Amino acid sequence: MYQSIHRLYHHHCLSKIFQPVNLKPKDSNVKKDEPMSLSQKLLVETGIISLRSNGMFALLPLGQRILKKLMMIIDEEMISVGAQRLTLPLLTSADLWKITGRWNSTGQELLSLQDRHNREYVLSPTHEEAITSLLRDVYPLSFRQLPLKLYQITSKFRDEMKPRFGLIRCREFVMKDLYTFDESEAKAIETYSEICNAYDNIFQRIGVPYIKVAGDCGNIGGSFSHEYHYQAAIGEDTLLVCHGCQEATNIQLLSDSVNAVCSKCGSDMATITGIEVGHTFLLGTKYSEPLGGCYQNKRGKPEAAHMGCYGVGLTRVMAAVVEVLTTSDNIIWPWEIAPFKVCIIGPKEGSLEAGVTRWVNHLAKVLSSLPGYEDDIVVDDRHRLTIGKRVLEARRTGYPYIVVVGKKAQEDVPMFELIHTMTDESCYLSHHMLITHMRGAA
Amino acid sequence: MYQSIHRLYHHHCLSKIFQPVNLKPKDSNVKKDEPMSLSQKLLVETGIISLRSNGMFALLPLGQRILKKLMMIIDEEMISVGAQRLTLPLLTSADLWKITGRWNSTGQELLSLQDRHNREYVLSPTHEEAITSLLRDVYPLSFRQLPLKLYQITSKFRDEMKPRFGLIRCREFVMKDLYTFDESEAKAIETYSEICNAYDNIFQRIGVPYIKVAGDCGNIGGSFSHEYHYQAAIGEDTLLVCHGCQEATNIQLLSDSVNAVCSKCGSDMATITGIEVGHTFLLGTKYSEPLGGCYQNKRGKPEAAHMGCYGVGLTRVMAAVVEVLTTSDNIIWPWEIAPFKVCIIGPKEGSLEAGVTRWVNHLAKVLSSLPGYEDDIVVDDRHRLTIGKRVLEARRTGYPYIVVVGKKAQEDVPMFELIHTMTDESCYLSHHMLITHMRGAA
Repeated sequence: MYQSIHRLYHHHCLSKIFQPVNLKPKDSNVKKDEPMSLSQKLLVETGIISLRSNGMFALLPLGQRILKKLMMIIDEEMISVGAQRLTLPLLTSADLWKITGRWNSTGQELLSLQDRHNREYVLSPTHEEAITSLLRDVYPLSFRQLPLKLYQITSKFRDEMKPRFGLIRCREFVMKDLYTFDESEAKAIETYSEICNAYDNIFQRIGVPYIKVAGDCGNIGGSFSHEYHYQAAIGEDTLLVCHGCQEATNIQLLSDSVNAVCSKCGSDMATITGIEVGHTFLLGTKYSEPLGGCYQNKRGKPEAAHMGCYGVGLTRVMAAVVEVLTTSDNIIWPWEIAPFKVCIIGPKEGSLEAGVTRWVNHLAKVLSSLPGYEDDIVVDDRHRLTIGKRVLEARRTGYPYIVVVGKKAQEDVPMFELIHTMTDESCYLSHHMLITHMRGAA
Repeated sequence: MYQSIHRLYHHHCLSKIFQPVNLKPKDSNVKKDEPMSLSQKLLVETGIISLRSNGMFALLPLGQRILKKLMMIIDEEMISVGAQRLTLPLLTSADLWKITGRWNSTGQELLSLQDRHNREYVLSPTHEEAITSLLRDVYPLSFRQLPLKLYQITSKFRDEMKPRFGLIRCREFVMKDLYTFDESEAKAIETYSEICNAYDNIFQRIGVPYIKVAGDCGNIGGSFSHEYHYQAAIGEDTLLVCHGCQEATNIQLLSDSVNAVCSKCGSDMATITGIEVGHTFLLGTKYSEPLGGCYQNKRGKPEAAHMGCYGVGLTRVMAAVVEVLTTSDNIIWPWEIAPFKVCIIGPKEGSLEAGVTRWVNHLAKVLSSLPGYEDDIVVDDRHRLTIGKRVLEARRTGYPYIVVVGKKAQEDVPMFELIHTMTDESCYLSHHMLITHMRGAA
């Protein structure tokens, strides 16, 4: 039978990558006086994303790579808790949203359209109605198949009044949404805490410090929820975090008179701002009852499932990690989602050290063969540019490591400069030391 | 740094898979007298897809697995011709479609909406306008970076007057769309033929016989095009194929008086019906001129790029391969995109041969460790059902191989039944012979 003969383990050449750099957002929909976040500015200027319409971005090839890595982390953690991936249509019949009342309660943020027969559809911001009606339609699903955990990673839509900060608050975005179905509230709470563990794994793997807080249920509804935040100055949520026990709450949950002392341990509470990147909800039967989302119980009877729903905003994470880690005009990517882990830069064409160019391909080949780097090495082969110019661009794009093959590669024991962009440290290493170091970093 | 500790190489358990079987399409939008295709019936009844609204389907977990495998084939073949993946917004500003005239010419198939500020957007069926305006906005892109090949795999929308045959003609579907940009018509033709080679690779890897025909440019426009078809009775395109030289044409290209003799070799031509699953177009400057999609030429001046566009309908392929290969009520999947390659079935609980159940997990473990089967083994662990019932279901779902651990596994040299569903052959093999056979099949 036909076998895949393609192995993707090779290095990439920057000259071939579509990364239109140093662009200012040109879209006329962006007003000149609108606040722009650091992530928005840097992701656009480094050619990772591109504004296409007001609040809508294209993920360019580097952005697509980051998205793919986030998806992989999420897929693995979802599979590890037994969740199954599917794809629901992006269009959901408005009839379902009318049954739950969200057709009216969501307001102008809901994008909708009519088809040629004047039937109304929602351009779904979330899929509680859609997934619950799926459960209804496949009845009888036995109690033996519970807990059922179904998720998707798809584009979602929200007609923000004021889209801003680039991928932080846009109108079309990529979200992972998971829905769980259980027999009882007690079992739904068990599932809920299992998923929260998976969320901790996801955010730990992304590798950027996060804060989990008791959350606001908002328009989704349900009995309780938690939010996952990245602390950032531009964050739109205000959180109260205890200095002592790390207990944290979204301030929206509290009454007007905010108590600045932790109820749990008595320590002082600090007010910080956060970007919400994940949200978990225990929904109860809010959706399954009106929509008839039932499983077949032990007595063979239909019974409304106890649901949970759980979101991670992938495109928002992409921008929020930049807000957290980046302090200058150089992006800092967390290791696990960097578009490439290593950028190798050789001498300029016609320069005195041009003879060492052969080291570039050699290093690219050796590094690509190390576990953890298979598809993650890029060579900036634009040899008409100086080393300095290319190092600047590589720093700006935020590759965790930059390897420079320059003058010192001509020495008897060739030495290569290794730059660690997160700590802004650099040193010269021999071939052997370089490989050993990179193996240790993986 | 945090390391991925999750390996996905383990077997799956059918009891945990959300596969609601034996369902009839219930959606009230499906009229009782509407023609239903075999693929539509079987994909729904085996719980691979589910009709959600008129012409809109959910891909359930097995369908999602098939989609993922198709994506992998396409990603590999696209990368091998240097194409880069990105994601454009699904919503495209109607202004762009007005510039090219397609806002009016597309007619009622175009789904569109207005946002809260009454700005119009297209729910994109295809992205020529969007990608060309991207090229315009990133100017100056140097001639050195051409040919530029950008693709995406995303949901597309078409408000079909009569959605039918399930995934064959639906209103929301998954498509790979590639766009290429070249300096001249001559170079664009070179790129075109390179992409056609990649398409041949894609369809050869999928493994179902296909027909490449000179095509109709339709509403996309351009100077010439080719179509990739699967021959099937329900196909909506009529093709004229030469018995001698295999030259083929879409009948839409011909004048009224169809010549039944091949112009190339003089042989008789046969009329067949095909399902279009891929389409390639040489566009010229049809989009780049009105939209200003220019690169910077050798003299530093803007010049309209010569474009090509190339589509593969992934969800349509899923259904069309079923139409081609399936002759009974049992789906036949091509090897490379089967939801699982092997289904292992053990004895019923409490049956005389229940003692051999230990072989089930053993075989699952050994087979999962063979190259090519890492994530592709499923165990039907619903041991309350008879072997016979589960074999029937496995045949119906279309796993290429079924391994039955039954009575003969009790013998001194345990024997396992191996069923090859495509040829409907079966035989009893020892442990060693079974593993050797499966290694050979990969």
